[in-house]
Amino acid sequence: MTALTGVGVSPGVGFGPGYVLAYETPVPAPDARHGGDAGAERDRAARALERVAADLEERGVRAGGEAQDILSAQALMARDPGLAVGVAGLIDAGKSAARAVYEAFGGYREMLVDAGGYLGERAADLDDVRDRAIAVIEGLPVPGLPSRAAQPYVLIARDLAPADTALLSRDVVAAFVTEQGGPTSHTAILARAMGVPAVVACPGATSIAPGTPVLVDGVSGLVRPAPSEEEVATARNAASARDAVLAATTGPGMTADGHAVPLLANIGGPRDVDGALEHGAEGVGLYRTEFLFLDRTTAPSGEEQEAAYLEVLEAFPGGRVVVRTLDAGADKPLAFLPPQGEEPNPALGQRGLRLLRAHPEILNTQLAALARAAARSSAKLQVMAPMVATAEETAWYVATCKEAGLPSAGVMIEIPAAALRAADLAEEADFFSLGTNDLTQYAFAADRQVGALTALQDAWQPALLDLVALAVAGAAEHGRPCGVCGEAAGDPVLACVLAGLGVTSLSMAPPALPAVRAALSRHTREQCRLAAQAALAGTSPQEARAAARSHLPGLAGLAL
Amino acid sequence: MTALTGVGVSPGVGFGPGYVLAYETPVPAPDARHGGDAGAERDRAARALERVAADLEERGVRAGGEAQDILSAQALMARDPGLAVGVAGLIDAGKSAARAVYEAFGGYREMLVDAGGYLGERAADLDDVRDRAIAVIEGLPVPGLPSRAAQPYVLIARDLAPADTALLSRDVVAAFVTEQGGPTSHTAILARAMGVPAVVACPGATSIAPGTPVLVDGVSGLVRPAPSEEEVATARNAASARDAVLAATTGPGMTADGHAVPLLANIGGPRDVDGALEHGAEGVGLYRTEFLFLDRTTAPSGEEQEAAYLEVLEAFPGGRVVVRTLDAGADKPLAFLPPQGEEPNPALGQRGLRLLRAHPEILNTQLAALARAAARSSAKLQVMAPMVATAEETAWYVATCKEAGLPSAGVMIEIPAAALRAADLAEEADFFSLGTNDLTQYAFAADRQVGALTALQDAWQPALLDLVALAVAGAAEHGRPCGVCGEAAGDPVLACVLAGLGVTSLSMAPPALPAVRAALSRHTREQCRLAAQAALAGTSPQEARAAARSHLPGLAGLAL
Repeated sequence: MTALTGVGVSPGVGFGPGYVLAYETPVPAPDARHGGDAGAERDRAARALERVAADLEERGVRAGGEAQDILSAQALMARDPGLAVGVAGLIDAGKSAARAVYEAFGGYREMLVDAGGYLGERAADLDDVRDRAIAVIEGLPVPGLPSRAAQPYVLIARDLAPADTALLSRDVVAAFVTEQGGPTSHTAILARAMGVPAVVACPGATSIAPGTPVLVDGVSGLVRPAPSEEEVATARNAASARDAVLAATTGPGMTADGHAVPLLANIGGPRDVDGALEHGAEGVGLYRTEFLFLDRTTAPSGEEQEAAYLEVLEAFPGGRVVVRTLDAGADKPLAFLPPQGEEPNPALGQRGLRLLRAHPEILNTQLAALARAAARSSAKLQVMAPMVATAEETAWYVATCKEAGLPSAGVMIEIPAAALRAADLAEEADFFSLGTNDLTQYAFAADRQVGALTALQDAWQPALLDLVALAVAGAAEHGRPCGVCGEAAGDPVLACVLAGLGVTSLSMAPPALPAVRAALSRHTREQCRLAAQAALAGTSPQEARAAARSHLPGLAGLAL
Repeated sequence: MTALTGVGVSPGVGFGPGYVLAYETPVPAPDARHGGDAGAERDRAARALERVAADLEERGVRAGGEAQDILSAQALMARDPGLAVGVAGLIDAGKSAARAVYEAFGGYREMLVDAGGYLGERAADLDDVRDRAIAVIEGLPVPGLPSRAAQPYVLIARDLAPADTALLSRDVVAAFVTEQGGPTSHTAILARAMGVPAVVACPGATSIAPGTPVLVDGVSGLVRPAPSEEEVATARNAASARDAVLAATTGPGMTADGHAVPLLANIGGPRDVDGALEHGAEGVGLYRTEFLFLDRTTAPSGEEQEAAYLEVLEAFPGGRVVVRTLDAGADKPLAFLPPQGEEPNPALGQRGLRLLRAHPEILNTQLAALARAAARSSAKLQVMAPMVATAEETAWYVATCKEAGLPSAGVMIEIPAAALRAADLAEEADFFSLGTNDLTQYAFAADRQVGALTALQDAWQPALLDLVALAVAGAAEHGRPCGVCGEAAGDPVLACVLAGLGVTSLSMAPPALPAVRAALSRHTREQCRLAAQAALAGTSPQEARAAARSHLPGLAGLAL
């Protein structure tokens, strides 16, 4: 099989047997009949369906979040009374439990497919429930990802849902390869956070035969099935050489001529602090606080929150910690708030600050807990709001933070309107932090979760760079700092361009810090500025990147 | 009851008995039992469910589009075999058919609600099916909107789905009032297209008692239940006076000092041509072609398309007709293309030009039909693409149109990136047409369909005006015209501001043309320019509008 090419989204080289995520449960024979005891056979089928339902629910509780919703809906299918009646009827007619499940689910499936649309899409979930139930009845291994393995495997899939990956670690997965997804898809973000190489948007990947050894280069995007020993050695040597180069540059982020660009970490909770320190983060540029709020039936107490904030603050004595207040919405519902109702496009819905304005008690409790934690630590706490579009929203948020005793309050710039009117917002806010993932998604009306739109979700798109330049200029008008905490900050080439555009700090997944530190240290501020000007003059992402690259000679060995 | 206030989204005064869209089917008594013939009773229940399913399907076929999907899913619920088994069991236990339906659906409903999320939201659809089935069994009127009435009624609802309104006309509806929705919601667009007054985002509206006479002012947003005769007369006189003023201004659109701003119509098919001509449209600025493609199982033939295009072209001999090529996506699926799969945010998905690039045969057939129609008519045909984000996409589309023999090809500017890089796009395209509805939606990451976000969907938001200014400037750099075909063009005040920003034509729902014509005719180009500058200097929609208004003294009686 020849090599495949995708988009490298998490650096490093991975090698291991391919594990193709696809369920293959054998179809029970049409004439499979039970021995005569219909009652016992009905019990077998019912117990299998109940075990599948309970297993899905339990996996859901462990995974949490959106994954839990999906798994709960599947558990509901396993417990559908209409299906149970159908299965029992088929068993009474002599069919084996496995065949009865197969046929009863088949009838229901047909109805879903006929209905089309959203219901039709649920057919795959129904098939998964059916296959799990048949596997239980037949004593076959239940489909699912191995959470332990003799040697780390290369996980290959059409796409990965949070449910698939929720329980994985880097001891188990050598690399991720998906056919769909883009640089800001969940797979990409998860892989970078885990420090595991990943390639997305790689057509044909799932046709690799399971067990085939696979070599994955998370920088070039190359996926090579059954490589020669030499190819593996070459790729590993190149990765080691790169690691050695990275390890040689230490200390705070700055350009070759000493212009400081603090390098900060994006973290999702206290558990990520060790990784941030290990990679030399000077502080935290984005502390996502959703982990405290999602997957629970009551709101976290102020005391619980205070402890979680203090744990991170204490890891950075004298350093900066920027906390983003709760970012929830229709796609990440909070069980302790009244349901918002379905939204046709959750990414464009009542989320982030919009939701908190409707429920100020949540925000007030969070801000009070943050203020208490800040008082007990020497770290410099800053807070910022997600999903801000206007100066009016900014003023409301900053005033609320100041009332809570928090001296530094800023906003995420992740909506095009906020970048366009950055000067108006800077009059109200103490600082900006650019969220390039969402900013790209909205500026190009291109969903981060849709693989077919990867080309539009590219932070090298000149229009995205325009918005960064507008935000920096608006911030500068009022003397405010403007950092970047989106995925763009972790690309060594783009990091130099962002510094050249005037961005004042860069925050990223900790494993990306060494390469960015090295890239900045090898170029002067003026080189970065020229690279930025050249990129802005491009009319396509390819032109922009090539033009910038030509001004950044020190990147050899660090980036493509 | 005191007066309510919402957002006026379709001008005019409506008065009539309030019709509150809410289904109220009596609950069958818990001890309701049948006479003893369980078989006959089971048949009654089964026939009622089948009749409901067939009726929903038939309504779906008539309504088409998204409404059809919703109604088909409901029909599927009525035919659920699990529910049928449950109903039969309850009837065998002695319950009446109506009570059995009530209880069986209740059990299923509980499961859906427990599941939460999307499934939980379906509970309301299930209740609707249940109430329809009970109504059929009991011989009660089936819930639904009267499509005929002794006198036109004021239709009041929480929100209106396309299914509710698909079969209505202005002979039946005096005004629309909804508690949710915004200026660009489906209700608002439908109301303007019908020329019926409408108020949206009006909290408390559904608590108006059915049958109460209601006065609705679609300009001020006032909704007055049980008004005095004097109040009705005053409102009607003011509306008549306004109509008289409007009727006095005729001819092509131009400012007081003779600067031409052609006034064009947005149409959805040949059936809208009469309205466009009646209101003096100088041509068509947006001919939506989706009506040819949706709600059918095979693609329309080139001949069928040619006829539909020619019919509109012939209505405007020598005039301009701008046809938007097919704008479909995951929320408007085409039955004759392979299903795209569910998208988490269809508004940010593979739609418009993105979808056509994946299926060029659809675009090629459409362009060829357009070229043939153009050759048979004296109208000036122009074609444009929806959902264009980059110069690369623009170049591809324009080249494809030129190959098909169409001399004038442009793009919609409805994605922020396209406005930001307008100069790059103008190098490739012959003209621009600004779609302010989607442009606002993406620039503010605020779904047009979510009522809670109305304040962000305001075309007076300064950041939206910034994007218009950027698009106009980019077009001017290459000498290209840049019109507006979004809802903003139909607001008389905003129309003057758009003209002042340099927009070269305005296209709108035909009933909005007279007020815009009058507003332009009363102000010089310089007044419009000053109004635009003042609006851009504002930091909120309120400031922008008030500042613009102060430069436009001739609007008294035409707009608030």
